[in-house]
Amino acid sequence: VPPPPDARPRRPAATVAVADTHAGDLLGGYLCGQAAHTLRALRRHREADGPGAEAAEAVRELRRSARRLSAALHTFRGCLDGAWADRTRTELAWLAATLSLEYVYAARQERLSAALQRLTETSAAQRAAGERAVAGRDAGRNALSAGAARAGALLERRLTLARARAHSAALRALGSARFHAVADTVAVLAHEAPLETGAAARPAHRVLYPLAEQARRRLAGAVDALPPPAAVREDAAWHHVRLLLRLHRYAQEVVDRSAGAWAAAATRALDQHRDAAEAAAAAASAAATPRIAPSTAYALGVLHADQRHEAEAARLAFGARWEVP
Amino acid sequence: VPPPPDARPRRPAATVAVADTHAGDLLGGYLCGQAAHTLRALRRHREADGPGAEAAEAVRELRRSARRLSAALHTFRGCLDGAWADRTRTELAWLAATLSLEYVYAARQERLSAALQRLTETSAAQRAAGERAVAGRDAGRNALSAGAARAGALLERRLTLARARAHSAALRALGSARFHAVADTVAVLAHEAPLETGAAARPAHRVLYPLAEQARRRLAGAVDALPPPAAVREDAAWHHVRLLLRLHRYAQEVVDRSAGAWAAAATRALDQHRDAAEAAAAAASAAATPRIAPSTAYALGVLHADQRHEAEAARLAFGARWEVP
Repeated sequence: VPPPPDARPRRPAATVAVADTHAGDLLGGYLCGQAAHTLRALRRHREADGPGAEAAEAVRELRRSARRLSAALHTFRGCLDGAWADRTRTELAWLAATLSLEYVYAARQERLSAALQRLTETSAAQRAAGERAVAGRDAGRNALSAGAARAGALLERRLTLARARAHSAALRALGSARFHAVADTVAVLAHEAPLETGAAARPAHRVLYPLAEQARRRLAGAVDALPPPAAVREDAAWHHVRLLLRLHRYAQEVVDRSAGAWAAAATRALDQHRDAAEAAAAAASAAATPRIAPSTAYALGVLHADQRHEAEAARLAFGARWEVP
Repeated sequence: VPPPPDARPRRPAATVAVADTHAGDLLGGYLCGQAAHTLRALRRHREADGPGAEAAEAVRELRRSARRLSAALHTFRGCLDGAWADRTRTELAWLAATLSLEYVYAARQERLSAALQRLTETSAAQRAAGERAVAGRDAGRNALSAGAARAGALLERRLTLARARAHSAALRALGSARFHAVADTVAVLAHEAPLETGAAARPAHRVLYPLAEQARRRLAGAVDALPPPAAVREDAAWHHVRLLLRLHRYAQEVVDRSAGAWAAAATRALDQHRDAAEAAAAAASAAATPRIAPSTAYALGVLHADQRHEAEAARLAFGARWEVP
């Protein structure tokens, strides 16, 4: 059976029990595998002819492996050349952000336009029901259908512009010395990880497990400290938990454990939270455009509140899925 | 132990078991008791010196007894002079609506102003958190704090005007021949209910119970037919269930049964639903005011969506409390 595309690479020497493995073999194998994935994604992106489904898929692959690489460099920094690990993380983050930004804007526009569509349909249905029930009473609801089209057009203009800028920036980055340097680093890493000699030769369960345990504890602590989902909206605390959850999941991958099926669902909930929070901010920011019509601003207000509610729903979904790891 | 103030009046001949009671005694006793309550509330309202806490409390009492009277006239119409029952219901509805409208507007303004306050605080907290996290990124959120004050002032102007008009209409109504006629009807009803002779002499369980059972069935059928809470917002179906739930509760009161503790909680949820839906409509309607600033319209949009969300939450709360009666 071929492995599913998002399965992490198997280490070659899979005959040795994980607990007896040297830390260097376990961590080195993981880093080399993810670096190979990253290189493959970069090649696929280069071969894709301009933006499109193929390039988008390559960027998704790139982000998937780059954030695993980056998480491993962070969690197991103590087993690596620390300065190199920090530098490489910075460059990987730059690479993934630069190549993916245009797709982030595309997804945000899609989310906002779908939400506007849904809100307009709801408002029209309400109005129809209202007219049947009490004629004239719901006339104010016209405000949404009048402004929604212009709000949608305004958001599309803004996000298309942002997307075009992000695309140009990505093209410039691909031709830059910085890009070639990080691609070289990843290519080297695909063959050999610069492990700290002392740690690498010790058993994995002595060196790597305690570091993975630290990641678990940081996550559990941050979740304990979260404000209630409906309380004043401190997005940052939830975004932080999202990062810590990811670090925990990937640390478990390195030591060949699973973080549990709930962890993937909880991550998706926090991804939804971030997407909705950023879409809400985009609606608010568009409402600050000078000289827009009041009806446009009204529709953007409805859209903003709708996305804030989606963010709150995602927090509740996270709470429902969360299990103390 | 004195009865709580909202307990329905006990019938004088409480020594006979309810099942053996004549329909006329049971229904007549209930109608006379509620009519006496209504008269007392009218007197209290007259004695209250202008609008204030005392008058508001009198109007609450009036609505409480008038809607029980009206429900009994509707459910048990078959045991009464039908044309008289219909006429009396119309007049009671007019009386209660006319005297309570100014308080409805006051409550709506309170709800909207509290919601705006909460949304502004949330937005300010978000902004503070955003500024700590990513400087400048959340600048668009200023839109709410800038517009909320003007939106609040606009809503206050509109609802204060509506309230003043409702107050004048109530004063005019209190001096009208129509008011004196309905007060006379209620005064007569407090002494004797015009029961249909044949039905009045039969046992209550033969005459009244089947009519109460019809009210129960109509409620259960309407709840079964409700759209899902998050589906397209057909407010009317929920408002209809609210009325049927009330008819069921009061019919159970007449036949000396309790509709169950859940029924009161479910009614409160549907009251919340109606209040939030009407507040949302008021925000939308204010947004249609000519020449308002875009930031005002934006804040009204946020407020509208917030109140629609409250309405949806109330539907979920109703669903959680609902038990097939």
